[in-house]
Amino acid sequence: MNPAETEIAKAIDRWIVALKGRNLQQLFADYAPSIILFDVKPPFQLRGVPAIRTMWEECLPCFPESFGYERRDIRLIAGVDVAVAHWIFRITGWPEDHPAAGMWFRATLAFQRTGGRWLVIHEHVSSPFDPMTGMVVSKPEVE
Amino acid sequence: MNPAETEIAKAIDRWIVALKGRNLQQLFADYAPSIILFDVKPPFQLRGVPAIRTMWEECLPCFPESFGYERRDIRLIAGVDVAVAHWIFRITGWPEDHPAAGMWFRATLAFQRTGGRWLVIHEHVSSPFDPMTGMVVSKPEVE
Repeated sequence: MNPAETEIAKAIDRWIVALKGRNLQQLFADYAPSIILFDVKPPFQLRGVPAIRTMWEECLPCFPESFGYERRDIRLIAGVDVAVAHWIFRITGWPEDHPAAGMWFRATLAFQRTGGRWLVIHEHVSSPFDPMTGMVVSKPEVE
Repeated sequence: MNPAETEIAKAIDRWIVALKGRNLQQLFADYAPSIILFDVKPPFQLRGVPAIRTMWEECLPCFPESFGYERRDIRLIAGVDVAVAHWIFRITGWPEDHPAAGMWFRATLAFQRTGGRWLVIHEHVSSPFDPMTGMVVSKPEVE
């Protein structure tokens, strides 16, 4: 990894620690004011930290009291001043019979270097869906 | 727009022209060999042009004979050697009673400048889903 990729990998790790600790202050420490999120659930787009913060305030109480974040297939591409990272992940710790148990998602993050810091400018999180049924397909083909 | 953004906007326009013309050769003209696609439908990830080409060969016959590509909310962020673009879109021209009629999607594209050219290294396309029902929600809140 080059130094930029190391910095971005650390920022992503900090974000996961913040999420698991339900630390909303830290969760947005590396977000640019211009962030636009394409989330797994509606709306289509969330613009800016206050809107994304509200979404997390509503979502986090639905998460297991203690949960993990399992990542796979991470790829980082860092340029001079813009970078992209993507991976697949799941939240662990759900009761076995919970609909979210075992659901996997794809995440894409875009960063821009501003004032010497890498800030998240765009985030896209999703699962694919079956076009014949309209149902989400949340398991990768190979576990 | 700076010159890089103009170049990337043109590459995206060329891609749309290629799609509408079912020109698979042109469709992949700006794809890097390392492209990884997170598509709207399974599988979770498609790696490399041959896999993505096979997907399009299977998909395009299902598209209307003549179709349009309507884009909205495009944002381009081009750095020195990495760039990101995102927007929402729909394919037009479906029969009114077709399940795909009126479906919108979110698209994120990442580019890397290699050998003086901007190549697509990652693509993420999705619709959100309702976590209560598992059903795709393919209409933005504001039409």
